[in-house]
Amino acid sequence: MKNISIDRRNFIIKSALTISSIGSFANQNAFAKEHSVALPSAMKASSGGKPTLAFVIFPGITPLDMIGPATVLAVGEWLNIEYVWRDLLPVRTELEHISFSPSITFEQLDKVDILCVPGTGNPYALLNELDMLDWIHKAGSKASWVTSVCTGSILLGAAGLLKGYKAATHWSMMDNLSKFGAIPVNKRVVIDRNRITGGGVTAGIDFGLTLLAEIKDEEHAQIAQLALQYNPKPPFNSGIPEFAGKEITNATRQAIFSNVEKKTPDYKEILIRSAKRISDIY
Amino acid sequence: MKNISIDRRNFIIKSALTISSIGSFANQNAFAKEHSVALPSAMKASSGGKPTLAFVIFPGITPLDMIGPATVLAVGEWLNIEYVWRDLLPVRTELEHISFSPSITFEQLDKVDILCVPGTGNPYALLNELDMLDWIHKAGSKASWVTSVCTGSILLGAAGLLKGYKAATHWSMMDNLSKFGAIPVNKRVVIDRNRITGGGVTAGIDFGLTLLAEIKDEEHAQIAQLALQYNPKPPFNSGIPEFAGKEITNATRQAIFSNVEKKTPDYKEILIRSAKRISDIY
Repeated sequence: MKNISIDRRNFIIKSALTISSIGSFANQNAFAKEHSVALPSAMKASSGGKPTLAFVIFPGITPLDMIGPATVLAVGEWLNIEYVWRDLLPVRTELEHISFSPSITFEQLDKVDILCVPGTGNPYALLNELDMLDWIHKAGSKASWVTSVCTGSILLGAAGLLKGYKAATHWSMMDNLSKFGAIPVNKRVVIDRNRITGGGVTAGIDFGLTLLAEIKDEEHAQIAQLALQYNPKPPFNSGIPEFAGKEITNATRQAIFSNVEKKTPDYKEILIRSAKRISDIY
Repeated sequence: MKNISIDRRNFIIKSALTISSIGSFANQNAFAKEHSVALPSAMKASSGGKPTLAFVIFPGITPLDMIGPATVLAVGEWLNIEYVWRDLLPVRTELEHISFSPSITFEQLDKVDILCVPGTGNPYALLNELDMLDWIHKAGSKASWVTSVCTGSILLGAAGLLKGYKAATHWSMMDNLSKFGAIPVNKRVVIDRNRITGGGVTAGIDFGLTLLAEIKDEEHAQIAQLALQYNPKPPFNSGIPEFAGKEITNATRQAIFSNVEKKTPDYKEILIRSAKRISDIY
């Protein structure tokens, strides 16, 4: 940013002005980074001239998995953001009293530029929602970017979209990813071709900023990071098992899986059946 | 955590088991840190034996300001978390298509142990919601903990609850806090007696973990941090103006205030009138 030209500076200020106001950019992706895949022209031609980013929402979704990246990616208002489910009835989230209302149905939404699947503490229960997996498969196969946060990557895997791709997920469920042919990577954000996957829950913010830099440019991502004051200072150093130590890690893992087992006692069988399904039908 | 005793270890595992399951703790605040204020016995006597944490929600709320700390504080399910507004109709948030439904009204909720006011990009519009400010004043005056995230501290100030208290807010609106007698502090989380305030938007996660350690104990906060994999790795170093540099900061500030001015052209007068009101009536 040191040798910024006058033109560039004016561009940034003009761009930032559309934060939280109505506006869109003429020069989509003008400064795409080298390792980005080329964006198909469809990226510029969706709803109202804006690319469409669709979050899949479902019962039991972890709200922060979606609200983190959605907040980051809404900065600038240059994307059309939709929340898609099979019908328009509110879905109950993992957080008591918090529901999300879908903005569009699977049937109504036929063109997705950026697909994002958030996660849940119990992804196994979702592996029986076959219409959702089929829609994710169809939309993801045509999307410019296929992304997820937390255990959303397990749903992407179950939709047959991670075969041979490196991907992240919540630390406690890393080994499940390989069942769907994905290559689990212990990183907060993983980019492999047009797949971008985030790690557990709060990784959605880092993921959102990374995705924004990929699909738009670094300046927009930096503006979003400043607007959301993302200069994290965790009060403890327990954000990953390697730092949290054995006791805290075991207690947390036990809590997560006792919840899964209570809600979906046959989760291991579901996982095996789901892994078989992708080689059969996708 | 190195010399943890067997009893302590069993306590942690037992505690963690209530994550995402029904349960509450007998030993509230057993390991409260030295600088905590003593928790009144009322803290243990609210709804269903659980202390009540109430988030005030309102039109234009920034979803992440609330979902960040709510997700952290819901881990363990030992709190009764409510979302309070004047009626039960859904409130539209700052994020298009995302609404929150209140779980209880101002009138219905008479006992709050922990009050939390989330923020918005345009707090000035809320300074005319006098019933909300009066309710915040009343509930906050009796609460064990009075807290906020982002510009929620401006609303706490306008409710007369920050006179003489150190407090944080979004970096772009720091100077407004002093109009309500607060002492703005440029930190991510500020603790002053029983007031805990967080900085801008994403600071709500650090705030939530800090609050959890204060009102419960450090082990619970560490478990929550690991469950939410909060080991942040921002892709850029632009989370505060000092790092973001002049161009990005000016562009972001201009965007924020052009939005405020568009929606609330008389925001400066509203601020002055609101500051006068707290010395007149509270």
